[in-house]
Amino acid sequence: MSESPVVKIALLGAGTIGGSVIKVLRENKDIISMRAGTEIQIKNILVRDFEVPKLHDAGLPATTDYDEILDDPEIKIVVELMGGINPAKDFILKAMAHGKNIVTANKDVVAQFGGELFDAAEKNQIDFLFEASVGGAIPIIMPLKRSLTPNKISEVLGIVNGTTNYMLTKMTEDGADYDSVLKEAQSKGYAEANPAADVEGKDAARKIAILASIAFNSRVKFEDVSVEGITKITPNDISYAQKLGYVVTDAGIDVRVHPVFLKKIHPLASVNGVLNAIFVRGWPVDEAMFYGPGAGAPTASAVISDIVEIARGLEMHSKGRFSCTCYEQKNICPIDETVSSYYIRLLVEDKPGVLGCVAKTLGDTGVSLKSVVQSEEDLPGNDAEIVVVTHAVKYKKILAAKESLEKFPEVKGICNIIRVEE
Amino acid sequence: MSESPVVKIALLGAGTIGGSVIKVLRENKDIISMRAGTEIQIKNILVRDFEVPKLHDAGLPATTDYDEILDDPEIKIVVELMGGINPAKDFILKAMAHGKNIVTANKDVVAQFGGELFDAAEKNQIDFLFEASVGGAIPIIMPLKRSLTPNKISEVLGIVNGTTNYMLTKMTEDGADYDSVLKEAQSKGYAEANPAADVEGKDAARKIAILASIAFNSRVKFEDVSVEGITKITPNDISYAQKLGYVVTDAGIDVRVHPVFLKKIHPLASVNGVLNAIFVRGWPVDEAMFYGPGAGAPTASAVISDIVEIARGLEMHSKGRFSCTCYEQKNICPIDETVSSYYIRLLVEDKPGVLGCVAKTLGDTGVSLKSVVQSEEDLPGNDAEIVVVTHAVKYKKILAAKESLEKFPEVKGICNIIRVEE
Repeated sequence: MSESPVVKIALLGAGTIGGSVIKVLRENKDIISMRAGTEIQIKNILVRDFEVPKLHDAGLPATTDYDEILDDPEIKIVVELMGGINPAKDFILKAMAHGKNIVTANKDVVAQFGGELFDAAEKNQIDFLFEASVGGAIPIIMPLKRSLTPNKISEVLGIVNGTTNYMLTKMTEDGADYDSVLKEAQSKGYAEANPAADVEGKDAARKIAILASIAFNSRVKFEDVSVEGITKITPNDISYAQKLGYVVTDAGIDVRVHPVFLKKIHPLASVNGVLNAIFVRGWPVDEAMFYGPGAGAPTASAVISDIVEIARGLEMHSKGRFSCTCYEQKNICPIDETVSSYYIRLLVEDKPGVLGCVAKTLGDTGVSLKSVVQSEEDLPGNDAEIVVVTHAVKYKKILAAKESLEKFPEVKGICNIIRVEE
Repeated sequence: MSESPVVKIALLGAGTIGGSVIKVLRENKDIISMRAGTEIQIKNILVRDFEVPKLHDAGLPATTDYDEILDDPEIKIVVELMGGINPAKDFILKAMAHGKNIVTANKDVVAQFGGELFDAAEKNQIDFLFEASVGGAIPIIMPLKRSLTPNKISEVLGIVNGTTNYMLTKMTEDGADYDSVLKEAQSKGYAEANPAADVEGKDAARKIAILASIAFNSRVKFEDVSVEGITKITPNDISYAQKLGYVVTDAGIDVRVHPVFLKKIHPLASVNGVLNAIFVRGWPVDEAMFYGPGAGAPTASAVISDIVEIARGLEMHSKGRFSCTCYEQKNICPIDETVSSYYIRLLVEDKPGVLGCVAKTLGDTGVSLKSVVQSEEDLPGNDAEIVVVTHAVKYKKILAAKESLEKFPEVKGICNIIRVEE
């Protein structure tokens, strides 16, 4: 009997995802070997000093010296699972220069330096895959690049941050406020001690940049994405959303990241908790959605699927199959020019004529209204709340309307402006 | 400037899907060429006599003579879009024997003769792809075969028939009965004049056979699937489902096709109308769902993605990349031995002790109860309805319990037994 072929890999990092990759490659070894037509073997793992003994105890190879991996001609794939820009980017480029194929789960590096990394991959004739960088375990990069090839894609809308989706779900279900939900998310390990990257939308912006680059075949970088976090969402907004028949969720359209009111019947509207989903609209597919766990140990599924893709290619001597798909250079629509419907919540003086004044001011600035809700609850003093939902309008008109409204003494504040996805 | 490569294909059939494939290849030509790295050109189309002039008028090639296609060495891919077993199967085998790669949307042929077709593909060293045979436009075969490679899959649960899902959705939303909903579905073109294949579950069974073969790496044929349609579902069942917090949907587990009560929070529970979705549970992915249009013109997306996959392979001279993945021979679990929770609706005489008698009889046959609902509505005569939901139990015990219950004169009928997915 001839021996089955073996593809040897190295892991950079053995944290949550790395640990899961090690475990899955061991426990699902037979399945993976049969399906891949080749065995995947971990030849070396780059870790920090103090982690070496732990890995050795588990019978695993480990090193703190990256050159050991770079200079090992048997290692065909380097799997970067460290995260962050430095030294991950440098490590990836070095591995490419040594002719090694790359699998990475690193959204930061891909969103910010995707073009440069693809150029290096092309130059070194190696494969560079990053399924795990968006949507954790959800198969989305490959379906978008391959299965949806025939489509003119018009929209990619995703819930790509589990932390904020969990928080908005809890705010909706329990009526809790932002601060207490954040604390709960932190205590459950869903939010980090410093939650800025999640709640301010930066994490989602990186993922949306990667998805947009693929969907629209034009490089979109992290800096191109207009970002708005969930920090300003209050229980009031959630409660109005429910009255209006929407749910609040954390989504990005084209190259925007912001909370959005989604109609309850939208497929994304039922994606709750830490789960992620990416919704794609295009022709002829019409609509497609991909759903699953967006982070943590399940991400090993995406990482290993990339490893297997490259291993299959190596078996067939067809390296460099997965090149950059950004063959166009499209302009990023300035945020002022983007078109959307809006939910606007205002705090006003409770006296006759105020609602008419608000409606007229909006009309005068070219913002037409779809629905208006006036609060029935008693507010302190002589205050009232007005909530309007606008028809689709350019963002610059909303900003102009806001400026005009703020000039009226009866308008005590524009509490929140949130986009509505129809 | 060097000319870009061209891959020439032939279509068999120009109906809904065929027409859409023609249109998409024309209108998205630039996108597809750039993404595929090669142009896809329709060299010939096999149609019936009366369709030839229509295609010629549209500037398209057309023939009624299959040999013209078989003997054309330029045609590298034959795209079978005729449906049904005959002559589709024969045409596919002939094309394979002539060294042509195959793309098909034909669930009947794949579900019943998948093994034979894969053998022929292997023998002739050609590629055989069938993304469109399950879930219409939804990318599922490729994600299952490639993106989910690392996973030990434990469950595939799908809403894979739009007709029945539309009917159950309408029954739930409008409280309408089966017959009137069927008529409405027929008038809207969602159900055929003879709806048997859909409402009796055969269409879903073919799709589930294909999915199960891939997920479990073991050939599952149409005949292996235990099938139950939706013909026995009544508005009563739907109403009880709502009270119990479930939705009724048309799903298959392992190799079963039957209506099922799904908890409202299950991701599949919000898939409404003619849309389809396939839910996969496995390790390490945990859960993943793929959602989109299950039939009609959008299916061209899946068909063309397969064409492009093969075209890419031809460019890289790597034919035969997509071989059969059924490397195991697993047993099909006999339906009697399958385990599930059940919803049972009984019509009983409304007198003291009947509920206790029903509960005791179920207990004596090893069926333990999770919840019991007694109807509050007035039924004609001295009748009452009892609905029970059982804990997970083997189907043979349910059958035994049914037999015992039917012996009691107080039990006037077992109205329905429906599986419950926890």
